[in-house]
Amino acid sequence: MADARFYFSDARTWRYMVASIEKIIEEGVFVATGEGLSLRALDTSHVAMVDLYYPNTAFIEYDIGGESVEFGVSFDLLSKVLRRARKEDELVLEVEGSRLAVKLKSRGERTFRIPQVVMTYEKLPEPKVSFTVRARMLGSTFREAVRDLEPHSETLTLRALEDALLLVGSSEMATVEIELSQSRGSLLDYEAESQDRASYSIEYFSEMLSAAQAADAVVVSFSEDAPVRVDMEYLGGGRLTFYVSPKIE
Amino acid sequence: MADARFYFSDARTWRYMVASIEKIIEEGVFVATGEGLSLRALDTSHVAMVDLYYPNTAFIEYDIGGESVEFGVSFDLLSKVLRRARKEDELVLEVEGSRLAVKLKSRGERTFRIPQVVMTYEKLPEPKVSFTVRARMLGSTFREAVRDLEPHSETLTLRALEDALLLVGSSEMATVEIELSQSRGSLLDYEAESQDRASYSIEYFSEMLSAAQAADAVVVSFSEDAPVRVDMEYLGGGRLTFYVSPKIE
Amino acid sequence: MADARFYFSDARTWRYMVASIEKIIEEGVFVATGEGLSLRALDTSHVAMVDLYYPNTAFIEYDIGGESVEFGVSFDLLSKVLRRARKEDELVLEVEGSRLAVKLKSRGERTFRIPQVVMTYEKLPEPKVSFTVRARMLGSTFREAVRDLEPHSETLTLRALEDALLLVGSSEMATVEIELSQSRGSLLDYEAESQDRASYSIEYFSEMLSAAQAADAVVVSFSEDAPVRVDMEYLGGGRLTFYVSPKIE
Repeated sequence: MADARFYFSDARTWRYMVASIEKIIEEGVFVATGEGLSLRALDTSHVAMVDLYYPNTAFIEYDIGGESVEFGVSFDLLSKVLRRARKEDELVLEVEGSRLAVKLKSRGERTFRIPQVVMTYEKLPEPKVSFTVRARMLGSTFREAVRDLEPHSETLTLRALEDALLLVGSSEMATVEIELSQSRGSLLDYEAESQDRASYSIEYFSEMLSAAQAADAVVVSFSEDAPVRVDMEYLGGGRLTFYVSPKIE
Repeated sequence: MADARFYFSDARTWRYMVASIEKIIEEGVFVATGEGLSLRALDTSHVAMVDLYYPNTAFIEYDIGGESVEFGVSFDLLSKVLRRARKEDELVLEVEGSRLAVKLKSRGERTFRIPQVVMTYEKLPEPKVSFTVRARMLGSTFREAVRDLEPHSETLTLRALEDALLLVGSSEMATVEIELSQSRGSLLDYEAESQDRASYSIEYFSEMLSAAQAADAVVVSFSEDAPVRVDMEYLGGGRLTFYVSPKIE
Repeated sequence: MADARFYFSDARTWRYMVASIEKIIEEGVFVATGEGLSLRALDTSHVAMVDLYYPNTAFIEYDIGGESVEFGVSFDLLSKVLRRARKEDELVLEVEGSRLAVKLKSRGERTFRIPQVVMTYEKLPEPKVSFTVRARMLGSTFREAVRDLEPHSETLTLRALEDALLLVGSSEMATVEIELSQSRGSLLDYEAESQDRASYSIEYFSEMLSAAQAADAVVVSFSEDAPVRVDMEYLGGGRLTFYVSPKIE
């Protein structure tokens, strides 16, 4: 009998989430309580934070066999396993002593057993950041915008206009300006208390692209020269959030 | 206000055209007159010529703000920008002083500004070449034939038979012979005054593959040991023509 | 007139078969008799055998101009040519003196002529191996299972359970277990006289992946620590079989 068992309907969502997490943090500890499964960790440069939360209701089965259970994983190894997840696969995670069983279930059942990572970790509080600008968009809109900027710029600047969000990047050879707005249908929702602006290293946004691929929606929140919060919203109320500190220019 | 503005319905046609032009010439000057937009330039080895012509009627908007306007571009940079063009994108080129704004318009508006290239250029006359053979085919037929030959041959020989065009290539290990004809449905049109033959370096045909991807039709015209003319025909009457000098064997 | 002519409806089946054969043996001699076309050869390490047989009924045309005909080929070169086979292409092989003409026929006719390989070869008997376990599956099931294991293991262990076939692999970091069964719909047929087990180098299974892509079904037969036989079944009764000697642990 497994110490804990998490049965999720869509293995590919986890494949795409973990493919992003893997690029930002090497190892991390999942904490499962009665409410849900969470993970909060900083990258080694302490510029970015990953904050995942899945309520127990998002699972087909959610059995933690007690008050809470923790299991540490290598995200590189977990991602290598989840890379095999196919469209029709369901996902079962089972904590088995010092190992984690990752089961991909569809016509066949494929079980990958990987060692858990024993590690101490810092219980990070939720960042206390207020935002004046909030833009909600499809995952594809987020991905295309970052992909447009990537070839031309190391910095991504967010600029809030009255009715549009500008994503701006530049190199010696080219400047790129992407305008997203509700009127054009490229934003689902947009609020801007003030026309703030902030810049970030585009590298972190590139690392979020995989997670955005499975997201129902992406919400970008920021304010003048402050950290950005990027929420990926998933089926069943799951959420993967990235915080990135600004580049002060 | 832009000095000149060219609004085109399908950004991807320009992406594929420029992806071919970029492989043959590094920089070139577009010339816009009342009739249309054109570009004519030789590659550095003077073996191939690129000759583009788009009538003003092919544009949704065609405003040159005067008698004519010229703007030089780096095709490598323009191609890098246009690589982001997606299926639903429209294209706007705006001449802004010393810069060129390239706008990709669909749900969002994405603006890429690149420097113009200041360069002297030789006004080349249209090559005076007569052709005895003329074969019209789909872009895909042209692409597949060149792709069949590429792995096996550095030379592409065109041989006109009475009712078929032969494309022939050979290496030490293999000879390849591709027969295209109206009777087989692989040619849309075919005329051969005489059963002429000519050979060319296949490299230039490989460089045309991208442009053929967006073409409605491709017309290959040649005669005995003479330059070949390859016309790519596009929506709205746009035309991109390549001339390649023969390899004399 | 060709010395022998083999006209087959689907060029891509041969493209995928030869793409696997090429990875196991460099050269081989096809033997065509009144019954059909066959090829049997060992890899250089004598761990794997390739055994192809196509009955004459599987061909649209099967003309060997006499009692039998033999032609040697370089599988690397034949694969390079067949790589150009497209979905709608038919295949014609014509023995022309010291050359082999490979014709891909659809809207156009593309003829590739390659030299035959003059080689002596050992007439290998069909291996006398008995099997206690026999599992029949779709080509895609076979491919996905091998792909699941490849990243994690150099060895593939087959373990017969009463109603399921287990494919197991392990590395220092992960163990992988794939369960295929009729009850789960991942096996078309399954017989196990005894719960035998045998291990093989996964490399040979990876080399079979291309051949499995065109197969209607794949049958895996083995017994305790004995060679495995993997039959790829194709349209028209064609069959490509791989034998692989076990890894004794």
